[in-house]
Amino acid sequence: MNKIVTLQQSVMAEDEKFAAAIRDRNTRMGLLMVNIIGSPGCGKTTLLEKTALHAGLSMAVIEGDLATDRDAERLARLGVPVVQINTKGGCHLEANVVEKAMESLPLDTLDVLFIENVGNLVCPAEFDLGEDFKVAVLSAPEGADKPLKYPYLFTSAKAVLLTKTDLLPHLSFDMEMFAEDTRKLNPAAPVFHVDSLSGAGIEQWVGFIKLKAKEKKANVR
Amino acid sequence: MNKIVTLQQSVMAEDEKFAAAIRDRNTRMGLLMVNIIGSPGCGKTTLLEKTALHAGLSMAVIEGDLATDRDAERLARLGVPVVQINTKGGCHLEANVVEKAMESLPLDTLDVLFIENVGNLVCPAEFDLGEDFKVAVLSAPEGADKPLKYPYLFTSAKAVLLTKTDLLPHLSFDMEMFAEDTRKLNPAAPVFHVDSLSGAGIEQWVGFIKLKAKEKKANVR
Repeated sequence: MNKIVTLQQSVMAEDEKFAAAIRDRNTRMGLLMVNIIGSPGCGKTTLLEKTALHAGLSMAVIEGDLATDRDAERLARLGVPVVQINTKGGCHLEANVVEKAMESLPLDTLDVLFIENVGNLVCPAEFDLGEDFKVAVLSAPEGADKPLKYPYLFTSAKAVLLTKTDLLPHLSFDMEMFAEDTRKLNPAAPVFHVDSLSGAGIEQWVGFIKLKAKEKKANVR
Repeated sequence: MNKIVTLQQSVMAEDEKFAAAIRDRNTRMGLLMVNIIGSPGCGKTTLLEKTALHAGLSMAVIEGDLATDRDAERLARLGVPVVQINTKGGCHLEANVVEKAMESLPLDTLDVLFIENVGNLVCPAEFDLGEDFKVAVLSAPEGADKPLKYPYLFTSAKAVLLTKTDLLPHLSFDMEMFAEDTRKLNPAAPVFHVDSLSGAGIEQWVGFIKLKAKEKKANVR
């Protein structure tokens, strides 16, 4: 088993070169890149749709899915530049594929490039795509116990989103447990409560992204 | 990359020996083993809690989680024999670990052994644990587009469960799309609609499991 672990590490190290190259280029360009990670159906695409409707943020999206281009279609309909990656069963995106996808996006017109990773709370957390930071998305119906059960993502994310808050009245979601566990795992991360259908909380989230995009641009040497 | 693929296949082949040994033993014993797969928070543990409350089915559970033993605790409270496996970041269960867990369960008193796999709609679908069949669990809030977006599980499962149907009135869930896509991917699989909170649909699901357990016992040579 040692041999395969070593080989896997070397393949990951190979991919980390792509991640480093992406990060270098984005730093030179002042382009913010955000890696959105969450379970299937936690509301990642709807969040990006609502984000796109907000004025004053030029964005593009790279969509990761096992199959179909439904998510890319939804965003393209809003005029968002979008590239769909189908992993054909792969459980996460990798930097070499992301770099290729970036080639067909108008990078120098953008404030932020969102990566919507494959719907999976586990594997995507372990792979560096060259992003500025990861965002952990949890939908309220998944339950308040998920941060502790899937700690790797919630520890490494720079922001946490609780989505589908419109469903809270119909759920037994323990908000105190969620707040406490999230704070324990990741004291520095802001937590945004979002209902993408009504738009509640979207403004705070977009404000956070705008601020990060502005900081990124300000740091261009 | 070829080298690592070959090595991974050989590691998987090694694990398949454990899966085959489990399957052999279960066939000799007439023990049904069911591998429950679905996203984080789709309601797998609640489904098993409600299944355990039904009379006339002697069951045990092997719980797969990245971290915590909360799910095992919930089932143990109901008197269900349960073993918790913590994968420490691993995105799926493997047969060698399941075989070890089975050692501490009263196998010869059981009708069915449920495996609650790690919450993940992707990776667990690819690993044989020696089970009789996989069950795909989708919760209504995840959305009707998921079978086509995660086709590997929905194609290979022997039954599909739509859970949290109590939330349907608050969702824009396209039931026709769900039914049609599921049928296209897997025409033979029965689809159960379940609301574990009220118990609606649990009887049909338990009836299906009882039937399969009876068939398994009847086939003992």
